Amino acid sequence: MLQLYFSPMACSLASRIALMEAGIEARYHPVHLQTKQVVDDGSDFLGVSPKGAVPVLVLENGERLTESAAVLQYIADLKPQAGLAPAFGNPDRYRLQEWLSFVGAEIHKAFLFPTFWYKDDASLAKPRARIAQTLSMPAAHLTDREFLVGDSFTVADAHLTWALLLLRPAGIDVAQWPSLSAYLARMQARPAVRDAIATEMAVRKTMAASPA
Amino acid sequence: MLQLYFSPMACSLASRIALMEAGIEARYHPVHLQTKQVVDDGSDFLGVSPKGAVPVLVLENGERLTESAAVLQYIADLKPQAGLAPAFGNPDRYRLQEWLSFVGAEIHKAFLFPTFWYKDDASLAKPRARIAQTLSMPAAHLTDREFLVGDSFTVADAHLTWALLLLRPAGIDVAQWPSLSAYLARMQARPAVRDAIATEMAVRKTMAASPA
Ligand SMILES: N[C@@H](CCC(=O)N[C@@H](CS)C(=O)NCC(=O)O)C(=O)O
Ligand SMILES: N[C@@H](CCC(=O)N[C@@H](CS)C(=O)NCC(=O)O)C(=O)O
Repeated sequence: MLQLYFSPMACSLASRIALMEAGIEARYHPVHLQTKQVVDDGSDFLGVSPKGAVPVLVLENGERLTESAAVLQYIADLKPQAGLAPAFGNPDRYRLQEWLSFVGAEIHKAFLFPTFWYKDDASLAKPRARIAQTLSMPAAHLTDREFLVGDSFTVADAHLTWALLLLRPAGIDVAQWPSLSAYLARMQARPAVRDAIATEMAVRKTMAASPA
Repeated sequence: MLQLYFSPMACSLASRIALMEAGIEARYHPVHLQTKQVVDDGSDFLGVSPKGAVPVLVLENGERLTESAAVLQYIADLKPQAGLAPAFGNPDRYRLQEWLSFVGAEIHKAFLFPTFWYKDDASLAKPRARIAQTLSMPAAHLTDREFLVGDSFTVADAHLTWALLLLRPAGIDVAQWPSLSAYLARMQARPAVRDAIATEMAVRKTMAASPA
């Protein structure tokens, strides 16, 4: 069985959503990102992946795959009939890769990440300057579309949904982009997305109640 | 014919390297990233891509593809016999995607980018703290390997080569990681890589000599 190392509501949520949308069973291992401990048994997460970051997907053969863009495509391709990615050979596959890169690099790393790093306005000016320009891209794209790629839910939507959920803790009001807040509401109404979030919120509560 | 919008020595260099390694002819359009002008005719680069960032690949059908991870895989798949990406269905394809994400998100956006943003040590502390941890990943991987994925040059190597070339302008000495500096020297010895760099250095000189 596949195994996913995750931290509640971290970017690994996208991989959980993909697994649940595909109806693929997996074992889920929560990780304390601060202490780099696997919650199950207190073992060293750096022994699972030297990157020390989630998601880490343990494949059936024991190999570990990291990086959301790769993990999400791997999961999608395990169950093509779930339609979570355009098939290889379909030009839309590159659109999927384009969005996965945009969410992973431009949204997650280029502004969300440094927004959590700094407290002072001077340092925050740089990432803040990127927010509107960056989010206007999916906002414009989603004005007349239901999903990022094609006419159905793909792993790119799983990725963007997670990123949009993180805007609030980053102090950014998604309501500024009506098409994005409508999209987020649609995505959150999907049973698999709702279940994935509810499960992670519950795990988070347990983790907060126990010592790191 | 394919067209590539680029800026000399920017991350679009990886796409040029891929095109040249594959022996694919293309038209190259330099862009002033500051003024968002296409150098050829002074037209507005935002009309080419609202992201205002390179690379932008104009496909044969006129569509525009952005994001290095997507552009690089597109180029590789145009000419499978060049071996620039493991075929779809080969498990190594996900390793390629893992490295493309790592270079694009973890190297480019999570530390190179903010390293260029700030001048004061306090703000620089955050991105600097990531440099060694991040670069130790490809450094360890390349200790006993010639290439990032499999036994031959792929577009992941084109991407990492560009990122390593940017370390110097970012004030980071690649010699700290002997396996990375040996790798960079090997990559720079490849005719296509050498030609790509020489071409872009020449364009950069012309652009510097003309008003923005
Ligand atoms: N580029 C990676 C990013 C992974 C990442 O940044 N994960 C965060 C959680 S959202 C993490 O585990 N951070 C812990 C750390 O870096 O110490 C991906 O797309 O999967
Ligand atoms: N995630 C994009 C990054 C593109 C990017 O940041 N390009 C830079 C040059 S390396 C750029 O054009 N910056 C201009 C700007 O953002 O104004 C990719 O992987 O292609």
